[in-house]
Amino acid sequence: MPEHRERLRVRWVDTDASGRIHFTAAFRYFEIAEFELLRALGVPYQTNAEADFPRVSVAATFRKPITVDDVIEVRIRPARVGERSVTYQCDIYHQGEHAIEGQVTAVAVGPDGRPRPLPESLRRALTD
Amino acid sequence: MPEHRERLRVRWVDTDASGRIHFTAAFRYFEIAEFELLRALGVPYQTNAEADFPRVSVAATFRKPITVDDVIEVRIRPARVGERSVTYQCDIYHQGEHAIEGQVTAVAVGPDGRPRPLPESLRRALTD
Amino acid sequence: MPEHRERLRVRWVDTDASGRIHFTAAFRYFEIAEFELLRALGVPYQTNAEADFPRVSVAATFRKPITVDDVIEVRIRPARVGERSVTYQCDIYHQGEHAIEGQVTAVAVGPDGRPRPLPESLRRALTD
Amino acid sequence: MPEHRERLRVRWVDTDASGRIHFTAAFRYFEIAEFELLRALGVPYQTNAEADFPRVSVAATFRKPITVDDVIEVRIRPARVGERSVTYQCDIYHQGEHAIEGQVTAVAVGPDGRPRPLPESLRRALTD
Repeated sequence: MPEHRERLRVRWVDTDASGRIHFTAAFRYFEIAEFELLRALGVPYQTNAEADFPRVSVAATFRKPITVDDVIEVRIRPARVGERSVTYQCDIYHQGEHAIEGQVTAVAVGPDGRPRPLPESLRRALTD
Repeated sequence: MPEHRERLRVRWVDTDASGRIHFTAAFRYFEIAEFELLRALGVPYQTNAEADFPRVSVAATFRKPITVDDVIEVRIRPARVGERSVTYQCDIYHQGEHAIEGQVTAVAVGPDGRPRPLPESLRRALTD
Repeated sequence: MPEHRERLRVRWVDTDASGRIHFTAAFRYFEIAEFELLRALGVPYQTNAEADFPRVSVAATFRKPITVDDVIEVRIRPARVGERSVTYQCDIYHQGEHAIEGQVTAVAVGPDGRPRPLPESLRRALTD
Repeated sequence: MPEHRERLRVRWVDTDASGRIHFTAAFRYFEIAEFELLRALGVPYQTNAEADFPRVSVAATFRKPITVDDVIEVRIRPARVGERSVTYQCDIYHQGEHAIEGQVTAVAVGPDGRPRPLPESLRRALTD
């Protein structure tokens, strides 16, 4: 299965009064990596306009603090591609260390808000 | 013209590594007050579904730092109601002191994305 | 173990182009409820200044979409209180339905950034 | 005076239920450009640790909507460098059009929270 690596810089607005990132920033990094994975696979967000992809479950584990100006690498890969959903495995590295890891499961829904099969081009791209 | 006062608590996620709020939090507080002003006037967001209200200009001045768990009062009033736009004056008080002030101008646009007159019920509510 | 229920309103800034909340908003709601639980228990954030509480793992499952202006109730309780960490169970209800559920585990760290026992007053408040 | 141009991509989390960016995203883009300007000038955030730079006034005008996946260019330059403050002029371009413009004034404060002169290396870098 394909993997994408996205290099990002931690921003000031991502921090909180602890001096480190607010934990929700990790999910924004995962999402950026997901969009870039799909772009790299030739199926960017816009090509999947027939479906919407709300998250049905998300999780993250934090191993090492990161803060403003840190350069991180987000590695993302589709860990499980189902009939109607995809689960991404997301791992964030900072200076060679595994800082954050998580999983994000998105389900395809149609304009009526009900689950539907993944668009075929998306499924193919994710499983090739 | 009507004024609305909204009491809010500053949240952890609103802070940054300075230990104070990130300045963009002020605009979120302004926006919450705007929604509550409209609700108090009987014209909540949902009643204005025929128009959309993107911001065309916004500004804020910061006089006094505020931080997590501070209780603030946002005072908002329509300072200028035009044919197609409304400018809100927003003032945030903390412990009796004027902490932040700003202005937000929103323009009404129709489904085609072009400016249109303010919905009549909204105009009436804002100018009575 | 104590439970706290916090009534919140979903805000415009919490939405994304799907028309529903961005999923990260759920974690902001969980965090607000955590701060209010601690305040209700007499051990607000400020009384625990000797320790910092970074999150080590978080998760959420989304059952029902929520959007701007929805009034939600966040129910939070310490599901597991360990020597150095606490896990909160968080459940969000909307119009009587279970919309989102999640878990947040925070660990106490000292000024040196290393795990330390939960402050005694906090532990007592969470376990009484 | 130096100018810096930063190419950014608009992210999903920057949007709101209007389908466009939430207006506060503009200030995050300005801030990213400010950090990158300072880095390019050899005086990144970390080199100015003796001072903190809270914003005292900010403003933005929106001319053209932008949305997810748009690639934008943020142009930033110090428009006025005072004894204790600096005002940045910020302009965002999208597909050759001027989409957003704004000003951000930051004041230098010392550890006591009171205004102080700009660090000399920062002043030099901004005025050369």
